[in-house]
Amino acid sequence: MLAARGGWQALRRCASLPRAQRVVRLRVREALRAREPAGEVKVQGWVRSVRSQKEVLFLHINDGSSLESLQVIADPSLENRDLTFGSAVEVQGKLVKSPHKMQNMELKAETIHVVGPCDAWSFPLKMKERHPLEYVRQFPHLRCRSNTLGSLLRIRSEATAAIHSFFQDNGYVHIHTPIITSNDCEGAGELFQIESSNEARKSAEKTHFFNVPAFLTVSGQLHLEVMAGAFTHVFTFGPTFRAENSQSRRHLAEFYMVEAELSFTESLQDIMQVMEDLFKTATNTVLSRCPRDVELFHKYIAPAQKDRLEQILKNKFVTISYNEAVEILKQAPQTFTFKPEWGCDLQTEHEKYLVKHCGEVPVFVINYPYDLKPFYMRDNEDGPQHTVAAVDLLVPGIGELCGGSLREERLPFLESRLQRLGLTDAYQWYLDLRKFGSVPHGGFGMGFERYLQYILGVDNIKDVIPFPRFSHSCLL
Amino acid sequence: MLAARGGWQALRRCASLPRAQRVVRLRVREALRAREPAGEVKVQGWVRSVRSQKEVLFLHINDGSSLESLQVIADPSLENRDLTFGSAVEVQGKLVKSPHKMQNMELKAETIHVVGPCDAWSFPLKMKERHPLEYVRQFPHLRCRSNTLGSLLRIRSEATAAIHSFFQDNGYVHIHTPIITSNDCEGAGELFQIESSNEARKSAEKTHFFNVPAFLTVSGQLHLEVMAGAFTHVFTFGPTFRAENSQSRRHLAEFYMVEAELSFTESLQDIMQVMEDLFKTATNTVLSRCPRDVELFHKYIAPAQKDRLEQILKNKFVTISYNEAVEILKQAPQTFTFKPEWGCDLQTEHEKYLVKHCGEVPVFVINYPYDLKPFYMRDNEDGPQHTVAAVDLLVPGIGELCGGSLREERLPFLESRLQRLGLTDAYQWYLDLRKFGSVPHGGFGMGFERYLQYILGVDNIKDVIPFPRFSHSCLL
Repeated sequence: MLAARGGWQALRRCASLPRAQRVVRLRVREALRAREPAGEVKVQGWVRSVRSQKEVLFLHINDGSSLESLQVIADPSLENRDLTFGSAVEVQGKLVKSPHKMQNMELKAETIHVVGPCDAWSFPLKMKERHPLEYVRQFPHLRCRSNTLGSLLRIRSEATAAIHSFFQDNGYVHIHTPIITSNDCEGAGELFQIESSNEARKSAEKTHFFNVPAFLTVSGQLHLEVMAGAFTHVFTFGPTFRAENSQSRRHLAEFYMVEAELSFTESLQDIMQVMEDLFKTATNTVLSRCPRDVELFHKYIAPAQKDRLEQILKNKFVTISYNEAVEILKQAPQTFTFKPEWGCDLQTEHEKYLVKHCGEVPVFVINYPYDLKPFYMRDNEDGPQHTVAAVDLLVPGIGELCGGSLREERLPFLESRLQRLGLTDAYQWYLDLRKFGSVPHGGFGMGFERYLQYILGVDNIKDVIPFPRFSHSCLL
Repeated sequence: MLAARGGWQALRRCASLPRAQRVVRLRVREALRAREPAGEVKVQGWVRSVRSQKEVLFLHINDGSSLESLQVIADPSLENRDLTFGSAVEVQGKLVKSPHKMQNMELKAETIHVVGPCDAWSFPLKMKERHPLEYVRQFPHLRCRSNTLGSLLRIRSEATAAIHSFFQDNGYVHIHTPIITSNDCEGAGELFQIESSNEARKSAEKTHFFNVPAFLTVSGQLHLEVMAGAFTHVFTFGPTFRAENSQSRRHLAEFYMVEAELSFTESLQDIMQVMEDLFKTATNTVLSRCPRDVELFHKYIAPAQKDRLEQILKNKFVTISYNEAVEILKQAPQTFTFKPEWGCDLQTEHEKYLVKHCGEVPVFVINYPYDLKPFYMRDNEDGPQHTVAAVDLLVPGIGELCGGSLREERLPFLESRLQRLGLTDAYQWYLDLRKFGSVPHGGFGMGFERYLQYILGVDNIKDVIPFPRFSHSCLL
């Protein structure tokens, strides 16, 4: 997101300083990308390395604007015992062409001011060490100063922006769907219930803050369906919650989901096209806007991921039906813990095999058994293997990345299904939508953390969120 | 967000249709803005008016891509009893220049297909009626089809994008701060507590899902401070929660907050400059990208707001100190319910008077009494009227729109304050940040709903959120 910033911003900052000073404040990224040497500049950041030689003092300064640090060269007389790894400094001097091939510019320091010293002994990050992700996960309030988490969070920020842009450029209206809700979307999944903390202190027989039980959202889908009936194309991108055991490398209690809903769909392919376009557009944007940050992951964390990703971005995603998937699994030479059978859910082992069978690429599986899926999915009316127009996108190493479906827009179908489930009263408003200008529509959701895990090749989902939970209760 | 879409997208859609058809699917906004007449086009949307004359049938079709509807002219033989207000239609025909001054293009229908009829009798919205906001608030699942809420939600979507862009263009990294947290940021405010719904069903003596009590966030500030120590400039824009009575026109249990944190600040003015820049940049973007939608509010909801807003965008915001504010209030000719006194919080009546006194413009009030403000605010060390470097931005009709401060970056100051409050153990990690390269920093938060209320002149905060709570329990 820093690409758009140019000299004018630095000049604007300069303009706000007292006139006599005429010092241009530059961020490290700006300094590194400068085309011309510059007179009085000031760079602020944290020391990433100190190397004192007889004739010259070398520093590397990082301010989080890029993975790369700015090299500072100074007279050894500017050395100072507070000038240690992790300390915060303000360096003033001249920006000059660097004689080294590895960097464009370097800063010739005239003054170095240690703004905030760093207690090197108790600081858990050490100079020039590549700390494993498991190690830094213990320090949720400090790990963002490591190279890996720095890159990760810049990528996460870029990916967030890329996803918003994708939808905006395609005419979708962004909707903040409710976080606190009384509907549980699928009737499945473990929910978090909320109460005001005062009430929580009271005992069992309590009245609810909202008069009805209230939960944290598991999906914004039903609310988006409301909006798709007015704006045709809508999306949301916010936190969702599951009260599942999240002490695993694959689950989080709190995670982000991108969800979109489209009206006037003609078939499930309309939804799949958007899923594929979203994935490819966002990924291409991230790759082009944070090449060095992504490179860190594709070099040290998941060395083969770069080539795989490039292949995937070039080719069309594979599509197979659930029926085909079951046949493939039945004919597999390997034995599964869960025997593949028409009508049963695909287990992790099945998903893995299918993805491998298709060449370790993203695979759409479509048209799932009617009885496996929630009430709102559109009946394909195909007997005897009765299915709904549902789709899951499976990707190597992750499993399900996206899930979507056409929604049942036909009042009689929805009415009879809700009646059988005894949910007619609770979903009266949802039935209403089918009485007033109902149109064929559908949508999907994509887990944002799984997306990041997949493109970067990160094994543990807790390494793609800003604050890993559970390890540090104050920062939970 | 639709401005960027052009003919190429329509053509791309066309390309995905069977070749023989060669029908270009256009959204209403695209059709209205087309420069040239076009052959076979298809427009899909909902009927906003039907007028049948002897020789010609007039329809207006809206698909939420703009406030304006597309006029369709058809042979009366295409009339159909399902073709009523609210019904969903697909119209195919030729896009031609309109003979009327009010519109650029109109659609000469060849076929009209009613995709989804609308039960006009029970549909709560009526043709050509301007429904009051209070009325449509009763139908959270249908009100988005009214003109006012349609415009509001397009504006909300644009404003969201504008805020993201402002920060991205200025080199801020976007951070998803935790929603579920064990810290309460200020130690004040009513919190929502969460448990898994299974546990909630159990009685009093329960263990917590997260091992410690967990709450919904009231602010991402402390988490952002962590990140400002790595990236210098960070922001977040997400839901925050207060378990306060929200049956008022000014409060919500769930609302959105924009928060930013900046390292290497030189004074409180650095923070105020970003607040003012954010307000002006976002507002100018919204005004230029949704002129017709904003016009609806400035015409029917708050007729004087347009001129006021233009004045505000032109002038620099006013700044007064808390000391000055108290003097102004003491000299006021009117009597207040709460007597103005140094050391007391500013009440709504005081804020109103100050804003009026300054000419009904946004007013920064800075340097509040030390004892009024939370522990993390930076001590100004100015006795005897001891203050902290805090700022509130007050705006006409709303009161506090933004609040911010410099944060206490000096370890000894923070340590002694936390000790006096008995919070040292809980905030050990926060103290840690002051040991490892601590720098002067500060930040602010802006209530997003209040921002929308202010620029549009909307009285009730429930009219600027997608789903008004409490009125419809299923959609809570």
